[in-house]
Amino acid sequence: MTLEVFFAGDADRWAAYRDPLKRALREAGVAAKLRDSAPEPARVDAVVCGPGAAEFDFAPFVNARAVLCLWAGVEKLLANPTLTQPLARMVDPAMTEGMVEYVVGHVLWHHLGIGVDLARQDGHWQPRSVKIARDRQVTVLGLGALGQAAAGALAALNFRVHGWSRTPRSVSGVICHSGDGGLRDALAAAEILVTLLPHTPDTEGLLDARRLSWLPPGAMLINPGRGALIDEDALLAALHSGQVAAATLDVFRTEPLPAGHPFWAHPRVTVTPHIAAETRPVTAARVIAENLRRLATDEPLLHLVDRARGY
Amino acid sequence: MTLEVFFAGDADRWAAYRDPLKRALREAGVAAKLRDSAPEPARVDAVVCGPGAAEFDFAPFVNARAVLCLWAGVEKLLANPTLTQPLARMVDPAMTEGMVEYVVGHVLWHHLGIGVDLARQDGHWQPRSVKIARDRQVTVLGLGALGQAAAGALAALNFRVHGWSRTPRSVSGVICHSGDGGLRDALAAAEILVTLLPHTPDTEGLLDARRLSWLPPGAMLINPGRGALIDEDALLAALHSGQVAAATLDVFRTEPLPAGHPFWAHPRVTVTPHIAAETRPVTAARVIAENLRRLATDEPLLHLVDRARGY
Repeated sequence: MTLEVFFAGDADRWAAYRDPLKRALREAGVAAKLRDSAPEPARVDAVVCGPGAAEFDFAPFVNARAVLCLWAGVEKLLANPTLTQPLARMVDPAMTEGMVEYVVGHVLWHHLGIGVDLARQDGHWQPRSVKIARDRQVTVLGLGALGQAAAGALAALNFRVHGWSRTPRSVSGVICHSGDGGLRDALAAAEILVTLLPHTPDTEGLLDARRLSWLPPGAMLINPGRGALIDEDALLAALHSGQVAAATLDVFRTEPLPAGHPFWAHPRVTVTPHIAAETRPVTAARVIAENLRRLATDEPLLHLVDRARGY
Repeated sequence: MTLEVFFAGDADRWAAYRDPLKRALREAGVAAKLRDSAPEPARVDAVVCGPGAAEFDFAPFVNARAVLCLWAGVEKLLANPTLTQPLARMVDPAMTEGMVEYVVGHVLWHHLGIGVDLARQDGHWQPRSVKIARDRQVTVLGLGALGQAAAGALAALNFRVHGWSRTPRSVSGVICHSGDGGLRDALAAAEILVTLLPHTPDTEGLLDARRLSWLPPGAMLINPGRGALIDEDALLAALHSGQVAAATLDVFRTEPLPAGHPFWAHPRVTVTPHIAAETRPVTAARVIAENLRRLATDEPLLHLVDRARGY
């Protein structure tokens, strides 16, 4: 049987993904007809889509057995009422690697105080003592694929790593906390805090004024997860009081971050333009092809989204 | 037998090391009388010294069987003609950790282009693609204790790591080069170059104009090793031509780096004030105590300096 696969994405995305997807399908031995148009939606077996599909009408695809998303975050897709088919999100090994590199790089940036040196290129030699990682506590909120990989890489560099997840998890080398009670302990330990939670109703505005007050004074925050995890006004107030000494933010409630937003001009905030982890066509195509192979052979799909949890 | 140990260092260093050394000696079960004065030099069994001992007169210590240096770099001590006793240098695990953290942090800084983001805090949202580490080649010159640890940590983050040493070495996960012939290959691979060689007559000015020209155009350089490894005029010329895109320098021929030195004002040079790795009293004291234990029991000393090699 040849699968009918519809690519629901704009011309740019189709240009980036068409060849990698065709090659990955060939390598996976999947017989599929992949097209960027769907003249007969009822004949489509699977839809591949990007984050732009939040507004797409999935209703005509009455026989589609899977919607395969090219992105890790699916909160906007889940808000699309026409999407009733089983939905799988992207877990791309290259995206995980990019995220780990971003997290480790920015944690070390804060840990080593590289910003202090950059501000002292003025001819004054001012040696300073630098803590070593085994004396530094880092907390990672979220222990999914990305959080576990980031926490593991930090632990390998001797950081004293705490992790927090909604339900109990066990990660080698990481002091794991869970649930509402564990959150306070995890935040209290965080000299450097990394937020890698999905955006769900439970995590909306998780870092509000109350929870930011649980951090040790002078904590540093890195958010490469989701903008909506943070109450932005509460973070600005915590930066003002010194409760949060510095923040590196890659994701925002509104993207692109508006030109007049106070984060841009704040001397202790570093804005990065949602670059921590991007889906990469070649590796993402292999994940899509594997799920299409499973669809063709009636095996369970990988990375299926649990709508109750929201990811 | 109780060892007579003389601490040859100024008051500040004695204040920092006295208690850690006494505790480490007790923990190692070494009977030693540790003092910062030596009324009878001929009765001293071992001298502990800092880098300031370059000018110290070791001649009266006619029965000392060891000089134990608190620093990793011993080139200045070796130039002291009165030092004829066996010399051991410091290999401090905490210093190695600090060095690894500095190297990984600054490699990721260049790899991720964090400087690009810092220069773009102006309200313009400019996403950019970031390479992942498995597509980035990093070369570490020097595969001693520090070089091996740094190369291993970079390889664990998926960087494609090349290493170079004078004599052939094998390091897991690292593409190893050696000798004069291997140096050209190691430099040609270096999108990011890390220099962790000791300063010896062989490595003096190693990175001269000719060898800098072997780097791929636009290479990035990180020198936490020794200032004298680099021909500073050649580096400035390579920065000017773009052959070297950026440099992070922690060590210099003259330290403190003079206020008027062109490195300070160069827009693509980051100066850090010799902070990559400092000896830490608690962990260094354990290394000293272990060598004193070996001295007391006539076992071979650790980290003995080979005067012919220079380290």
